Amino acid sequence: MGSGEFDLISRYLAPLSGLGAYGLTDDAAVLTPPEGKDLVFTKDALIADVHFFADDPPDLIARKAMRVNLSDLAAMGAEPLGYLLALAFPKDMKNIDGWMAKFSAGLKLDQEEFGWSLYGGDTVSTSGPLMISLTAIGIVDRGQALRRRGAKLGDNIYVSGTLGDAAFGLKSIQGEFAAIKTSAIKPLIDRYHLPRPRLGLGRKLFGIATATMDISDGLAGDLRHICALSGFGAEIEAELIPLSDKVGKLLESFPAYKNLIWNGGDDYELLFTAPKDMDGEIDRLSRELGLSLTIIGHITTEKSVIIRDSDGINLLQDDDQGFRHF
Amino acid sequence: MGSGEFDLISRYLAPLSGLGAYGLTDDAAVLTPPEGKDLVFTKDALIADVHFFADDPPDLIARKAMRVNLSDLAAMGAEPLGYLLALAFPKDMKNIDGWMAKFSAGLKLDQEEFGWSLYGGDTVSTSGPLMISLTAIGIVDRGQALRRRGAKLGDNIYVSGTLGDAAFGLKSIQGEFAAIKTSAIKPLIDRYHLPRPRLGLGRKLFGIATATMDISDGLAGDLRHICALSGFGAEIEAELIPLSDKVGKLLESFPAYKNLIWNGGDDYELLFTAPKDMDGEIDRLSRELGLSLTIIGHITTEKSVIIRDSDGINLLQDDDQGFRHF
Repeated sequence: MGSGEFDLISRYLAPLSGLGAYGLTDDAAVLTPPEGKDLVFTKDALIADVHFFADDPPDLIARKAMRVNLSDLAAMGAEPLGYLLALAFPKDMKNIDGWMAKFSAGLKLDQEEFGWSLYGGDTVSTSGPLMISLTAIGIVDRGQALRRRGAKLGDNIYVSGTLGDAAFGLKSIQGEFAAIKTSAIKPLIDRYHLPRPRLGLGRKLFGIATATMDISDGLAGDLRHICALSGFGAEIEAELIPLSDKVGKLLESFPAYKNLIWNGGDDYELLFTAPKDMDGEIDRLSRELGLSLTIIGHITTEKSVIIRDSDGINLLQDDDQGFRHF
Repeated sequence: MGSGEFDLISRYLAPLSGLGAYGLTDDAAVLTPPEGKDLVFTKDALIADVHFFADDPPDLIARKAMRVNLSDLAAMGAEPLGYLLALAFPKDMKNIDGWMAKFSAGLKLDQEEFGWSLYGGDTVSTSGPLMISLTAIGIVDRGQALRRRGAKLGDNIYVSGTLGDAAFGLKSIQGEFAAIKTSAIKPLIDRYHLPRPRLGLGRKLFGIATATMDISDGLAGDLRHICALSGFGAEIEAELIPLSDKVGKLLESFPAYKNLIWNGGDDYELLFTAPKDMDGEIDRLSRELGLSLTIIGHITTEKSVIIRDSDGINLLQDDDQGFRHF
């Protein structure tokens, strides 16, 4: 730990630290847990050129790292309290200082947006790519954390928002839609860079949802987790999966990409199941939040995930994450 | 996140998960904080061939990653509650499964030793070296966390145990003491691989110590933090610094390595200051714990760290971490 590390931490991270974090000058941060709350913990590691591009704008990298973890908190029905951050910088990285100035500006923006702060930081040097590891701490009313298990036979399956936007945004970054004009693509790229953790929805689902998770790896694969943990299967109607206008338009020109809707990652929408008689309650919640909550299928006895087209044909292939029986 | 990740997590990490971690199958873990306690958080990233050697025994890497963080908890006077772990595996790493079997056996051993458990895990793939990031969660009686600031003019400066063992162990691993027989070196290498977090001491220091931290980067540099945060300086008598017999012997043959005693890292002993009239109390504590607690100097007004030899000459050099005025 050279003096450079202390400079980076004191200059860029200490100003972001929360009450009890002592400006990151102590061996650890201290937090008095709020009365009557449970604490929720999650941790993700993000590696350059695996989870983000090394030359992405640093403020967007920071905000994505935060939001990916905030989405996990949302899936538990929790509110953000604080986070810890470890950064590994490539040995040959130029202008770490300039990068950190932008990265910390991104952290600050989303600290304010989501009302949480920094409780610990570590910076190290690596012979490999840039790495960011973030541990998120959330709070939830005692005993009210949402779970992945708990889906019941016949439950409706819901998703928030629209699916596939981030996956199409990523394809576009990778140069797939070069012929399409930028204005038709830009919002999809933004969705890839800046997930919108559904915290407002998550904290309203206790007593409504029987199982909840966030969609980070694609609908098919993620739904498979809910099914496996709940001991059931799921049948989805492809036509019910909510799409944005932009993705709908792109699919007209690129129908081969249809499977991105259920196999593409980075949506960070919430996927949840609820008894059929909760439908009215969920409609009301959707209007209250100004967020679409769409029934896309239901829980079945057969222990597999099926996505049917309008002719009843299963669209999931052997190599799709959701297909395998479990 | 491929199916390989789920296999690794379910096979090796899930069995280590604590109550509320739901076998690591949910988006996050839930923890009900104990009444009347504050929570303490710290996070470290360890990179292969920077913080450990890639071919070190995996169980020792696991235990060192834990103990480095446990030492931070000790320095806050906290007890371990749980931890979260992120692992990044090199893309070309052979036999990750075999490595994880040994690594998780190391985790299990030290979970039992220190009475804590796993609250979250993430495994990813990297084009760089193996990386381990661990977030430690501890508990301390409300308002009783130890701090680095708070040293007062004239306070005695104490260290636990002996200093330099790990640094000499590391030199030995690097081939420096090839002529010395193994039995004289092995315990020093063990100290390098397996720090002994001073949790028992830390939890007794509230009301006794005015400032506390753990020595991870070397006495001189770490003492500098306590001094800078407390607004004072420090004067250490080199002859008072407690050495193990093994290090004492090595120094007779290799006197040029003397500065490893205060510049070498990885000791993970506690460094603390206390008013002179606490001396009897600290003697009593030392006997109770069976752990030497040695006065090595005192807090001064001049804002620098000085390490004097028996002739009064300052042994710290310009390039020693502690020397710079602050």
